Amino acid sequence: MKKYAEIVAAIRAVDKTVESDAKARLDSLTKPVGSLGILEDCAWRYAAARGELRARVRKPCMLTFAGDHGVADEGVSAYPQEVTPQMVANFARGGAAINVLCRDASADLKVIDMGTAIPCRFPGVIDHRLGAGTANIAKGPAMTRLQAETAIEAGAAEAGIAINDGATLLGTGDMGIANTTPSAALYSVLLGIDPEWVAGRGTGIDDARLAHKISVIRNAISVNCPDASDPLGVLAALGGFEIAGICGAILGAASEQIPIVVDGFISGAAALVAMRIRPDVADYCFFSHLSAESGHVAAISAMGIRPLLNLNLRLGEGTGAALAFHLIRAANAILNEMATFSDAGVSTADKQE
Amino acid sequence: MKKYAEIVAAIRAVDKTVESDAKARLDSLTKPVGSLGILEDCAWRYAAARGELRARVRKPCMLTFAGDHGVADEGVSAYPQEVTPQMVANFARGGAAINVLCRDASADLKVIDMGTAIPCRFPGVIDHRLGAGTANIAKGPAMTRLQAETAIEAGAAEAGIAINDGATLLGTGDMGIANTTPSAALYSVLLGIDPEWVAGRGTGIDDARLAHKISVIRNAISVNCPDASDPLGVLAALGGFEIAGICGAILGAASEQIPIVVDGFISGAAALVAMRIRPDVADYCFFSHLSAESGHVAAISAMGIRPLLNLNLRLGEGTGAALAFHLIRAANAILNEMATFSDAGVSTADKQE
Repeated sequence: MKKYAEIVAAIRAVDKTVESDAKARLDSLTKPVGSLGILEDCAWRYAAARGELRARVRKPCMLTFAGDHGVADEGVSAYPQEVTPQMVANFARGGAAINVLCRDASADLKVIDMGTAIPCRFPGVIDHRLGAGTANIAKGPAMTRLQAETAIEAGAAEAGIAINDGATLLGTGDMGIANTTPSAALYSVLLGIDPEWVAGRGTGIDDARLAHKISVIRNAISVNCPDASDPLGVLAALGGFEIAGICGAILGAASEQIPIVVDGFISGAAALVAMRIRPDVADYCFFSHLSAESGHVAAISAMGIRPLLNLNLRLGEGTGAALAFHLIRAANAILNEMATFSDAGVSTADKQE
Repeated sequence: MKKYAEIVAAIRAVDKTVESDAKARLDSLTKPVGSLGILEDCAWRYAAARGELRARVRKPCMLTFAGDHGVADEGVSAYPQEVTPQMVANFARGGAAINVLCRDASADLKVIDMGTAIPCRFPGVIDHRLGAGTANIAKGPAMTRLQAETAIEAGAAEAGIAINDGATLLGTGDMGIANTTPSAALYSVLLGIDPEWVAGRGTGIDDARLAHKISVIRNAISVNCPDASDPLGVLAALGGFEIAGICGAILGAASEQIPIVVDGFISGAAALVAMRIRPDVADYCFFSHLSAESGHVAAISAMGIRPLLNLNLRLGEGTGAALAFHLIRAANAILNEMATFSDAGVSTADKQE
């Protein structure tokens, strides 16, 4: 398994020459310049990240990381913690939304237990357990700095295995009861936004529990005194095992020049950590959707990102990323398969003649 | 070929019992209630339109209608009229964006010449020509009422053929230089919106030509004196052959209880006419995307519709609808393939216990 420092050091800027070539090719295709909008952006961003003009999307693979959270003890979620392994069992049997959407997108799905309270010993579930859930962030750090590095290394290793198996597009997803709480804490500290603006209802808590959740996040930040300029330290203090695994998958994908589709609220917090660790990571990320989780809009705006989809999803698991696979693959097909004006003998706009 | 009156008379309301059953099934699936947002809406709307809870999306088929417009003589487009048949030739050879996106979505594509200035005698292009383009709406009606009915019958017939061939989801697309002008005129009259708010830059005209386009639309409305309560008359006065064909495909699909995905600005104008002819049509339509054509936001808001995608597309051809096929198919898979809480033995939210 590659070490944390090695993974981070391997990340370089995307290829600006390929980016220009891809934009030029898009402008030569039989359509008014720019008329495929954000699909065109996806096409050149994919090529630039791969460092190859005609690189194709092959064998997309979703990496869904599961973990539990000590902060669930504070009563911040509508669901009991036993749901985490129950849902992982559902993933293992193929009955969850993420299974359906990955099959529908012809994508592989890998489910990784990063540390649920009850171990997920189900067929096909990959074991990278770092403990029986994190410690309660309202009382101290979620994990040690070494655990955060180890979780990142595990996530990057799983990304690497998928890439070795032929995946040229990855996606991230999460499962972990209470994990909107650590995610909101990460956004709050790294973006300098009050917890009130990034905390939301998760799987469906009421007003009273939302107010309580906000105060729990405030406590967690005040107890841990995180230093925003040390993203790994912030992740260790306030994150989660599955969040660190997602962060590792993103860093690992970027280190191998493979684009990665980031799901919603939880994956976005992991991506934010990864981008703070190494800003070049941003150009390898596709942000799939604006979550209905109310804090996401504030977080994503502060990050300066416009997600591809806005479908009021708030499920996690990687469901938004799986839907966005379709768009990235379509964009990639446009760049590679459309005829140019000269191929097709089509007249260009009169003002350009 | 079924007659206009017969097509319209066959359209009935979607099945509200199936709608309730589909919503109940969605709520029983292993996810927090409503957490798949608009994807869930697509799932129950599809089932209700089909009148069958477990109806599946099979063999999606895109119907792309081409036509030319006398109003192109007024200089309202950035492209010369010869581009219409050139692009249809590109469709016939498989090199256009709609070909790529239909292949990518495993969808069939049918291209129908409803009346281009130069006939589109290319392999595979279906001939329903009603003339060498419409008359110039700035000087009088685009077509006769009989032509509008005939175009609708042709569009419905092509929808019917696709449905007989096994399609359980259709899409609409357009090709026709200058066709944002008649579309804007239709929106303006049927929605009571000033032409200034629904006219846009089409394939890319400058400020001066946009101002001219708005005045052409005003003239067209004043010359034709359309009666907004007579949608077929408005279509004949201000529409286009391909717009009438799209309107017919929508009416035809609804008459056979097959949902249809409406592309952007031009297809939306055709859908508006169809919904004014028979309001029940609305429940068979999926509006695929908010176009970058600047008038679309005003039109779609006035129609009370929230499109599925917002990707700054402004190409037409059915490209937005082809992308939305992925979402409808994914939604349909969710309803049909996910496990329920009782199947999976997953605990429900504690507040519900």
